[in-house]
Amino acid sequence: MTYTYNNVYIKDKYTIGGMYEKDGPIGKYFDKTYKDDLYINQNSWEKAEIHLLKEAVEKLIKKQKLKNSDIDLIISGDLSNQLATSNYAIRDTNIPFLGVYNACSTIAEAIIIGSSFIESKKIENCIVATASHNMAAEKQFRNPTEYGTPKHKTATFTATGAVSVLLSKNKTNLKVGSVTIGKICDLGINDVNHMGAAMAPAAAETIYEHLTSLGRDSTYYDLIVTGDLGIYGKNILLEYLKTKYNLDISNNYDDCGTMLYDLDNQPVLAGGSGPVCSALVSFGYLLKLMNDKKMKRILIVPTGALFSPTLLFQKETIPSIAHAISVEVV
Amino acid sequence: MTYTYNNVYIKDKYTIGGMYEKDGPIGKYFDKTYKDDLYINQNSWEKAEIHLLKEAVEKLIKKQKLKNSDIDLIISGDLSNQLATSNYAIRDTNIPFLGVYNACSTIAEAIIIGSSFIESKKIENCIVATASHNMAAEKQFRNPTEYGTPKHKTATFTATGAVSVLLSKNKTNLKVGSVTIGKICDLGINDVNHMGAAMAPAAAETIYEHLTSLGRDSTYYDLIVTGDLGIYGKNILLEYLKTKYNLDISNNYDDCGTMLYDLDNQPVLAGGSGPVCSALVSFGYLLKLMNDKKMKRILIVPTGALFSPTLLFQKETIPSIAHAISVEVV
Repeated sequence: MTYTYNNVYIKDKYTIGGMYEKDGPIGKYFDKTYKDDLYINQNSWEKAEIHLLKEAVEKLIKKQKLKNSDIDLIISGDLSNQLATSNYAIRDTNIPFLGVYNACSTIAEAIIIGSSFIESKKIENCIVATASHNMAAEKQFRNPTEYGTPKHKTATFTATGAVSVLLSKNKTNLKVGSVTIGKICDLGINDVNHMGAAMAPAAAETIYEHLTSLGRDSTYYDLIVTGDLGIYGKNILLEYLKTKYNLDISNNYDDCGTMLYDLDNQPVLAGGSGPVCSALVSFGYLLKLMNDKKMKRILIVPTGALFSPTLLFQKETIPSIAHAISVEVV
Repeated sequence: MTYTYNNVYIKDKYTIGGMYEKDGPIGKYFDKTYKDDLYINQNSWEKAEIHLLKEAVEKLIKKQKLKNSDIDLIISGDLSNQLATSNYAIRDTNIPFLGVYNACSTIAEAIIIGSSFIESKKIENCIVATASHNMAAEKQFRNPTEYGTPKHKTATFTATGAVSVLLSKNKTNLKVGSVTIGKICDLGINDVNHMGAAMAPAAAETIYEHLTSLGRDSTYYDLIVTGDLGIYGKNILLEYLKTKYNLDISNNYDDCGTMLYDLDNQPVLAGGSGPVCSALVSFGYLLKLMNDKKMKRILIVPTGALFSPTLLFQKETIPSIAHAISVEVV
């Protein structure tokens, strides 16, 4: 499902990174970073993640000199069970709220939904937001961190941080252009330590559909970035597109999971993941390149592994999804 | 946030109930019911829930003599962690997918989002869907069922079943009229065995906003139904509206949780809950009354408790939300 928005603009964003994100190559571009990655002045990892998201939303509203009552809608999602991070972070805002979940592609889903509300003229603006926290995610999805379970090199590292983006019907120099809503893909991978492999086909199918539906060559974009495939998943994506569709995007393709960290010197295995990974890279860094006139059009393709630990224990595989959003300088 | 849709219609629905729902007063109106509530030919409760949702989506498409490729989008959500029910049920459809979560008000959220896509003319139709399974929900949210923990009479009973609804831009006799997107409410209740009390204020605020924003008297509707407040929450809602807003809706108000079961003779405590509860009552029963010309306008107000067991263990309270959707005969 690919189509174009005509009246949706990016007004502003607020990006917060944790300590690993701060020390990465693009850490200096974030609006705020924390040195203490674990607790961020809270007494649990879950509450730290809530604090990050709450701060990202509040600071964005403040940065724009707006009041909460000026915001028509918040759309937010995260990895925490029952979307607890979003629910508790947004609880006191008194702003209409919709919770969304497509795992690490959640920010893409939120932008697509928010844009459809603006395009349908039902609202004038909305905040879309997401967050993740490395330790909260490890605790919920994998082994208790205290076990010290060794990790395979193909595993990714959940990023810590929060990102909020203000979408508006009022013209700015950056617009939400064309989007592709992805379909679920499942090629039978069941290794949670190789999610790049599970998600790469979903990303490839979405990119292929996006380009062919719009009759665009990949060079239409200055950069196509996937969400969190990591170094191994990135290569699988390139191979998949070449083999299945004879499409080579290697000249203008990268993955947010490999851009967020210094892979040679930080202990992040195959790269970053988590819903905030693609959000930090896209809205913390790529938007700056666009504002600096170094890029004109980018295609952001956040990727999500829609698995559940409970179902994996029941011998299920990892379904995946990817949505694409073009951001263009106007 | 209240507004009106002009071009969104309900084309059809498919409703499936479990054995308790079958034996309730409206059980005979569902498209299908199961006698075996637990496994439904599957080997786990989670897989049984997936099976229900998959069947509801497939049968709706079949009933309408459509192919999967005729459906532009599926929007679905459920109580299962990571929305596993929706992800696995929709995995093989090859239809673009967005996952949503507002706990038991999820079907309302899905309808509002789907309607905004249709109204923005980006899609022509979409399926919105939800499911819940009593045992899967008990296992995930409360004590392992095998413990036999006694329940307080204010606790509700998660309904088992699945509902899918086909929304379309093409005119039918039933339209999605005005909607209100709710705000999160939290009055400090932390008792998971009294969720009706936690959710009643959210429902009351949404109903009040809906009526006042549109300048409507409550009698504009033949019936206003909340999602799953149960017998105690229902009274709290009426009291809250009377005390805070001097608004009496008792003449045309009911709660789906109390309509789904025979409360005197079924072991369901204060009534039904779960995202499928309001969906079964609204689309399995009330839509029939509208088609039979016994009602012309209803306001459906599914209610959701946005709590997380993890955060409750960390001494948090239960945030709640409610969205309102009017369905009107045209």
